[in-house]
Formats: sequence, C-alpha cells, structure tokens
Amino acid sequence: MLKIPDNQVAGHRALDGKLGPLIDDSGRFYKPLQKNERGSKEVAFYTSFYSNTRIPNHIRRFFPLFHGTQMLEASDGSGLHPHLVLQDVVSGRVNPSIMDVKIGSRTWYPQATDKYIEKCLKKDRETTSSQLGFRISGLQIFRNKESGFWKPEKRGVLSYTAMEVRLVLRKFVSSNIDPELISELDCSYASAVYGGSSGILAQLLDLKAWFEDQTIFHFNSCSILMMYDKEALFRGKKLKADIKLIDFAHVIDGEGVIDHNFLGGLCSLIKFISEILTNLDNNTK
Amino acid sequence: MLKIPDNQVAGHRALDGKLGPLIDDSGRFYKPLQKNERGSKEVAFYTSFYSNTRIPNHIRRFFPLFHGTQMLEASDGSGLHPHLVLQDVVSGRVNPSIMDVKIGSRTWYPQATDKYIEKCLKKDRETTSSQLGFRISGLQIFRNKESGFWKPEKRGVLSYTAMEVRLVLRKFVSSNIDPELISELDCSYASAVYGGSSGILAQLLDLKAWFEDQTIFHFNSCSILMMYDKEALFRGKKLKADIKLIDFAHVIDGEGVIDHNFLGGLCSLIKFISEILTNLDNNTK
Repeated sequence: MLKIPDNQVAGHRALDGKLGPLIDDSGRFYKPLQKNERGSKEVAFYTSFYSNTRIPNHIRRFFPLFHGTQMLEASDGSGLHPHLVLQDVVSGRVNPSIMDVKIGSRTWYPQATDKYIEKCLKKDRETTSSQLGFRISGLQIFRNKESGFWKPEKRGVLSYTAMEVRLVLRKFVSSNIDPELISELDCSYASAVYGGSSGILAQLLDLKAWFEDQTIFHFNSCSILMMYDKEALFRGKKLKADIKLIDFAHVIDGEGVIDHNFLGGLCSLIKFISEILTNLDNNTK
Repeated sequence: MLKIPDNQVAGHRALDGKLGPLIDDSGRFYKPLQKNERGSKEVAFYTSFYSNTRIPNHIRRFFPLFHGTQMLEASDGSGLHPHLVLQDVVSGRVNPSIMDVKIGSRTWYPQATDKYIEKCLKKDRETTSSQLGFRISGLQIFRNKESGFWKPEKRGVLSYTAMEVRLVLRKFVSSNIDPELISELDCSYASAVYGGSSGILAQLLDLKAWFEDQTIFHFNSCSILMMYDKEALFRGKKLKADIKLIDFAHVIDGEGVIDHNFLGGLCSLIKFISEILTNLDNNTK
C-alpha cells in the first residue's frame, strides 16, 4: 500500500490531488520523475553514482539507496507515471526532526538556459543562498506528544534572514521551542545531535573532505537533510543523527573541477554549526 | 624618483598617459585611489585590516604592507591625486614570473548595485570564474636572458578555457615554454615553486585554513598573486616562491559569515596545483 509521506519538509507534495512522492511500509520512497529532462537526469545520476567504483563507502552512506525505476499510478490520478524507487531515508524513525538545507550560493550552473539562470539567481538573492552559501528549504521539529511538530510555512522559511537561520539551527536542537517561552533556546540536544564523533558536524566534515577532492559530479541545487529523533533518548538509548543528500535533477559532470559552489556553502554551514557547539562549551565552562 | 612598474601583469597601467600605479626605488608601490568610493573603500580595508588584532601574523604576511595615503602627481598628468602607499610586493626580485589569479566564482556581491552585478555576472560567465571558481587575469613568465618574458595579451588570458588554465599553470613552472617547442611541458620548477613546506601550495593551504574560520571580511573580486624568480636557482640558492593577496576595493564586512565564495575558488585552485604535483610524483615513480 502506497501512502503520502508524513515527514516531507520541502519539495512537491502529493496532497490535494497533486503529483508528489509516495512511500510504502517496506522503507521505500517513490519519487515521480520530473518533467523537462530533470527526471531522466536524476535517474542518470543515481545510475552513474552507484556504478562508479571511485566513490568510497563512507560517502555512499550519505546518499539514499537506489532501486531503479517503476511505473506507478501517479498521486494526482493522471494514470501511470515513472517513479524513482529510492530508500525512504526517514523510515524507521519515530517523530523525526528534519531540516532540508539547499547547499550552494548559486543554484544555477553555467550550462543551464538563460531563463533558468535568471529564475535561480533571483531566488538565490531573495533567500539566504547568495549571502550564506545555503538556504533552509523546510523543516519540522518534534516538540512532544502533546504539542506534536513545529513546522513553519514554506514562505516564512524561504524568507529567513541570516539571523533567523542562526536561530533556527539552535532551535532545531533545543527543547524549549514553544513560541510562548521567552527564555533563551537551551540547545539541550546540540551535543548529541551536532557534536561527537558520529554527530552531524563529524558527518559534514567527512563530506567536506570528499568535496575538496572529488571532481566527478557538481551537485547543483542539491539539499542536505539533517535528521534525528528524540525517541531514542526517551528510551534511554543513544540518539542517532544523520545527514543525507537528496535531489539530483541538476547534477552535472564535474569535468575534472571540484564543486567549489557546493563546497563553499558546505563550509559555511559547518561554521554555523561549529559555532553552536563552541558557544555550548563556553557556557558550561 | 617614481616610475612605472615593469612587473605589473593585470589592472590599470600607467602607460600612454593613463592613470596607473607607480613605484620608487625603496620598495613602495603607489596606487591611485579609484573613483566611485572604491578608492576610499580600499583605504578603509587596509586601515581596518592592519588595526585588527584578530588577524594572525602568518596570515598578515600574505598581504602587502600599508604605509597610508599620499598626494602625488598622477601618472596621467591630471595633477595631484591621492595614492595608497603600499609595499611593492615584487621589489627585490630579479625577472620575476608572476600570475594574477582572481578568486571566486562570482566577483559581484549581494550588496552591490544591479548594474554592477549584471556587468560582473556577464564577465564571470565569459571567463572561467563561474566554472572554475577563479580566473587568470594576467601573467608573465621569464624564459631566459635572450628571450626575456612571455607575457600573453590580456584579452587572450581572459578567454582561457578550463583546459588552457590547466596548461598555463603547468607552463608557469616549466623551462621549455617556447612556442616552437612541441615537446610536453617539463614542469621542472614545479616542486620548487608549488611544492615543499614553504612552497605556494603550502601557503595556499595556510590561507584556506584561515578562510574556513574567518568571518571578518568578504574578499570580493580580490586576486592572489603567485610569484617566484629563477635568479636564485642560477646562483645556487633556494628558489623562493610567494603568494600575496591584492585589490581590496570590493571587500565588505563578513557579518559573521565565512567568505564561502573566496574559499570555494581557493579550494579549486588548490586542487589544480595539487594535481600538477601529483602527476610529477607519478612520472618519477
């Protein structure tokens, strides 16, 4: 049985009879192929990525598994439509907190059409992409059983200022995020989520080291999903935070050059997260 | 006695009655303040940079020394004009080989005017800036006493493709660069110039580490000068290669964010130079 994913924070959604991704109970994510060659480009990327032996396993773990394509009844009722069959990266998590961060100060690339470049440039300048090297595309933060998720509207998220981005990256790992609370965000999950040898910062640094060297792909307009769930903590287990790269409709051949646009934005995100951990250290001294 | 510098490879030159920089015999470089606030912005940058105690000495060495401003007779005969008084970074070098590399996939910045952004974007796309994260703005390579310098024309340099950039970075450290030679470039100075613990690659890596952390300045449209002279080698001494950052008319406040645009381009240049050294190692194995 296919259903609409609950935990999608950005991108097209299969609601109100629109075309969007579906999931099943076995942990698979069915993403309709996008029109205008984008769909076929994304299939080509997954095929090329998983057949490339130069990509180390510690990097592959940051990408959704790929199970090919499949014709499925589209969520908009338009009949059979080709879908990418991917790993549902949030499958198995209970009430996950998720943030979608689109990396790169530019989402366009020299090979694109003038019209596409103009559209992207406008959006990059209207959001934080140009200034910060990344923008937040969407997020949800689980508060507790009673109040459920905090999930700000897309329009509000895209209009974040640099200051608001800084704040929401702290909010993402705080327990006192209710709007009526006027105390400072406590960042009580920061060390567990961002810190440590297997936390999000460590994973971003692994990714960075690869991007300093790899010249195979340029990941235009891709996102890093950051996610964790508190359920483990409640059960006395170790909290597990993960990053995954998603959205590869604009990946192009690196042609022997590093992806300086993704790398620059990634380093900027790393700096933002490092500062949260540094402030934590300073406060507990 | 002021004179026109011999070793300028890019930017406005004080030739044919135009306004341009001058040097003296004591190792100082007099740069006329540019119009449209650019001049005053560059003065403001030098003042701010040298009064900022957070900038470590191993980073300061990459910048020209600053001795204030001075009213001088302009090189275009237009009368007294304010000049920046800087260290002449090539002073003391005999027949230096020099390359000016403008860093960043974009030379514009969000705070600039639409007109300026449009102009820069066009040039970034016409040159290698968008694609490689940097472009070569000018260069000269000293061959020998008989044939003197090879100094390609500005227009040709700005129209380099990615492949030509790769080639000229090898040519910069080769001894067999005469156009009539059809043998492969020998890269015979590559280890001495790019390699080693004090070579250009090591300096670029020092700079990179700083850029991963510093959020004080954004260096829009700045260049890295790479330079060395073979004279030392002829005299049996160790060849000394250096990098210097120049051109700060578009530096803006970092506002707590790293300069992801400069950093990305710098990492791309580092990768190009690393590859030359790696190929060298492979060839001698």
